[in-house]
Amino acid sequence: MSQPAESEKKFRITQVTPAERQEREDSLAVEEPMEIRIVFGPPERRTGRSLSITMRTPGHDFELAAGFLFTEGIVDRAEQILGFEFCGEIPEGRQRPNIVRVELDSQLNVQIQNLQRHFYTTSSCGICGKGSLEAIRSTGVKPVDSPLTVRAETIYQLSDRLREAQSVFQQTGGIHAAGLFNQSGELITQREDVGRHNALDKLVGNQLLEGQLPLHQHILVVSGRSSFELVQKAAAAQFPVMVSVGAPSSLAVELADEFGITLIGFASGKRFNVYTHSHRMLD
Amino acid sequence: MSQPAESEKKFRITQVTPAERQEREDSLAVEEPMEIRIVFGPPERRTGRSLSITMRTPGHDFELAAGFLFTEGIVDRAEQILGFEFCGEIPEGRQRPNIVRVELDSQLNVQIQNLQRHFYTTSSCGICGKGSLEAIRSTGVKPVDSPLTVRAETIYQLSDRLREAQSVFQQTGGIHAAGLFNQSGELITQREDVGRHNALDKLVGNQLLEGQLPLHQHILVVSGRSSFELVQKAAAAQFPVMVSVGAPSSLAVELADEFGITLIGFASGKRFNVYTHSHRMLD
Repeated sequence: MSQPAESEKKFRITQVTPAERQEREDSLAVEEPMEIRIVFGPPERRTGRSLSITMRTPGHDFELAAGFLFTEGIVDRAEQILGFEFCGEIPEGRQRPNIVRVELDSQLNVQIQNLQRHFYTTSSCGICGKGSLEAIRSTGVKPVDSPLTVRAETIYQLSDRLREAQSVFQQTGGIHAAGLFNQSGELITQREDVGRHNALDKLVGNQLLEGQLPLHQHILVVSGRSSFELVQKAAAAQFPVMVSVGAPSSLAVELADEFGITLIGFASGKRFNVYTHSHRMLD
Repeated sequence: MSQPAESEKKFRITQVTPAERQEREDSLAVEEPMEIRIVFGPPERRTGRSLSITMRTPGHDFELAAGFLFTEGIVDRAEQILGFEFCGEIPEGRQRPNIVRVELDSQLNVQIQNLQRHFYTTSSCGICGKGSLEAIRSTGVKPVDSPLTVRAETIYQLSDRLREAQSVFQQTGGIHAAGLFNQSGELITQREDVGRHNALDKLVGNQLLEGQLPLHQHILVVSGRSSFELVQKAAAAQFPVMVSVGAPSSLAVELADEFGITLIGFASGKRFNVYTHSHRMLD
């Protein structure tokens, strides 16, 4: 479960306490830009396009690209991705370039309006009044229809298990984690990143590439707070239950309600809050 | 120091503990999209453009727009902003629209390449090799040249003072804060948001509109971790000292080093780490 070595970097720091000032070496989470480029369209007019730049922790980069394309509604199954490759120069001190090029099936109809969600280039009204949520939502996400139920005793253990699965570095370094658990509360896999949306994209990308989507029978646990964006990505992967260690935002609750997701927050020790669809919670 | 009432919203939740399940009302931080539009150019070809959409907590919206325009290098002084107004429909249940229109001075030369940093629409290489950081940096930010020094005793108090200044709701709700302190560790003003970059943009926007920039004699404190993006915004406002309660990322440290900022992390109780430019720290 440990992250690749490239995900941390050592620095000389000064530790200050009332007793002393001490120079020592410290490991920090690496944050670097990653650009996702897609190549799409039929053979006669094959098109390359830069899709997004995200600040991420290196490691599991192809999963990150796959998860991003899936949760943002650009692909809906693994077969639409023909391949990945790193391209561009290798930055100084790094092992590989920071650009991931994704070759998409020539049959895939890439919706330019989906791409524009990320670019916000339209000079006409983007978000306005009742239409505001529509404009920022990725398209094609269906409400989660799952009979999954979960016992409170299972939820009590999840945040501890996610924390145990993180390395000491990642526990102290404040890096975000997203964990996939089964109905019994067993950890299936987890991913980490300085960006919480990236940690979730890596996890979903992993499951997409392994042919495990949709995740109707599973529980998602995120280390921080639940935002609109995280709930939207959880809905794309069809998680029926999403647990965060911190608070959800208002929009996260509203979106979870609409998408049929049981949203749980402040899950720490033997207590938690259920914000939506509490029918899935057994005693 | 309390946030406007529109920054929180009440929900019916189920609180679960081994002893009981209790239905109750809970306040959550509001997260809503806000679009920033700018109107710029000489009278004969005045142009309107949608610049960005950010998920933010409502309140101090004009400051958020001003701070965003400043920290992203689109304006460099308050006089270039002629006025703000809300436009578009008022969403159901809200007090005002979610679009802020900013009228810019007709003399201001708006650099389209600066705007493109936010849009990532170019199909050519955006970030690559050594040029990677350049492409995502806002332009025109100069290194911080300030003789400010700070005593360790002052730093020990900062995180507690920022926390005290937040309301109980914001303490429990996990909302991010950015605080402006003077050399003696007194809180001048603070802003809060579900997005940590928004909290800082609101703070910087407030200072821009009050004519207080650059902040060469002040200390910035942020409630979470230090990312590349936050350090970049701190550099735009020319803070010589930046303190975070959590960890910095590798890129945050590298950027602070380059911009001459004393970057402090893990500031909690009577200890902290200094990552860069420790010469400003007195015993």
